[in-house]
Amino acid sequence: MPPEKSTTKLRVRYSETDQMGTFYNSRALEWFEVGRTDWLRQAGIPYAEMEQRGTLLPLVEAHVEYHGRARYDDQLELVTTAAMAGKASMRFDVAITHVSGDRVASGYTLHAIVNAEGKPIRPPQWLNDAMA
Amino acid sequence: MPPEKSTTKLRVRYSETDQMGTFYNSRALEWFEVGRTDWLRQAGIPYAEMEQRGTLLPLVEAHVEYHGRARYDDQLELVTTAAMAGKASMRFDVAITHVSGDRVASGYTLHAIVNAEGKPIRPPQWLNDAMA
Amino acid sequence: MPPEKSTTKLRVRYSETDQMGTFYNSRALEWFEVGRTDWLRQAGIPYAEMEQRGTLLPLVEAHVEYHGRARYDDQLELVTTAAMAGKASMRFDVAITHVSGDRVASGYTLHAIVNAEGKPIRPPQWLNDAMA
Amino acid sequence: MPPEKSTTKLRVRYSETDQMGTFYNSRALEWFEVGRTDWLRQAGIPYAEMEQRGTLLPLVEAHVEYHGRARYDDQLELVTTAAMAGKASMRFDVAITHVSGDRVASGYTLHAIVNAEGKPIRPPQWLNDAMA
Repeated sequence: MPPEKSTTKLRVRYSETDQMGTFYNSRALEWFEVGRTDWLRQAGIPYAEMEQRGTLLPLVEAHVEYHGRARYDDQLELVTTAAMAGKASMRFDVAITHVSGDRVASGYTLHAIVNAEGKPIRPPQWLNDAMA
Repeated sequence: MPPEKSTTKLRVRYSETDQMGTFYNSRALEWFEVGRTDWLRQAGIPYAEMEQRGTLLPLVEAHVEYHGRARYDDQLELVTTAAMAGKASMRFDVAITHVSGDRVASGYTLHAIVNAEGKPIRPPQWLNDAMA
Repeated sequence: MPPEKSTTKLRVRYSETDQMGTFYNSRALEWFEVGRTDWLRQAGIPYAEMEQRGTLLPLVEAHVEYHGRARYDDQLELVTTAAMAGKASMRFDVAITHVSGDRVASGYTLHAIVNAEGKPIRPPQWLNDAMA
Repeated sequence: MPPEKSTTKLRVRYSETDQMGTFYNSRALEWFEVGRTDWLRQAGIPYAEMEQRGTLLPLVEAHVEYHGRARYDDQLELVTTAAMAGKASMRFDVAITHVSGDRVASGYTLHAIVNAEGKPIRPPQWLNDAMA
């Protein structure tokens, strides 16, 4: 059974800030990746292993809503959930907050399920099992 | 009168690729920024000047759809359009293609219009003039 | 008394890889920053606080030697040491290895000690105390 | 005959700034890459083609000296030179300045010459020819 949700903590790096003094907008997508990496590891299907088995999850769509600032060295919490979306795609939802609970950003990424040649495939049995 | 659209060319940097051999997903948001920087310059209101005048455009929302791969050193074309969205926000739409026309990614960013303290403001007259 | 060394663990993010299948070279400098952030926190002078007190450590020089590959999701270990370098600069040395001990990269960054206006200053007393 | 030097212009992106209001230090290595990409193209051996022929240039060492600030949207100029370094490595030197000539950063990267399996090789004839 997959985790209902995974929780990840990270600190904002100086390299992730911009001259507005908060995190640069594209970092949210990099943090979303950290969230889904953790979710997949907890589900027993680390993404590095998925790729080695020839199943890749390239992005089809990404959506981010920005709720509040986050400064260098702030500790953030990522709560990630995942689900199959249709027959050959997966969706990860991530909510990023301060440890205080104050919201930073939230959104989702939608992923195709493809083989090593980039062709869309039905989810392999082990993926269906992990998601069941 | 603002430009109907601006067109920007850039090459994919090696630093923008990932181990899947195409650009990493968050780069699309960095390229969107390159597109809107060029649009604003063509509209006569370079963003660096806007910030110096105390008008900032922090992101409220971002949306990206991924259509195709782009490899290191591929030359890409960004077509950007912009419009006021409601009374105190702006929206930029960007379409990224190969020079062949093959689609790479498209989407939009929605921006609040705020002062140097981060408070939402009505668009200044010069911004309305530039957008008219 | 400052820590002799600090040890930090991190995992390679997908966003940090490139099409060669290892981490992109500039990430080493971003990881060096993660290392010195941790060192300074352990020394009781978190860098975010230093900046608030008006003492900044901009880079003057950076040097990296690359010893081996690191793949997505590999767990890395950063060992950081620091020392005053002359009267108005600090040097951080970082060694990055796999948890197995296999070497990934090592090097240093040299930092000026400046005030909020960017002027070189003698290290404040609290910095000397922390480093003593 | 290879170019004595190549000159590249680029503008600082917002994503490349940090909360100190200048470019984040690791961007210098990303810009060095832009410089050597251009140099190799001018030498008639685009790096993307080199990789397709199975010759890669992974970094062995990088060195950066930081001379001055560069702000968002500043136009920078990269002057790149290259040379063989020993029997199986190449060195690229890059100087980054404002268009005014004011110095921003300079340094070099040292690269192994390896095949697709990562094994060090003698430079192929076409590389020697291009560098002659």
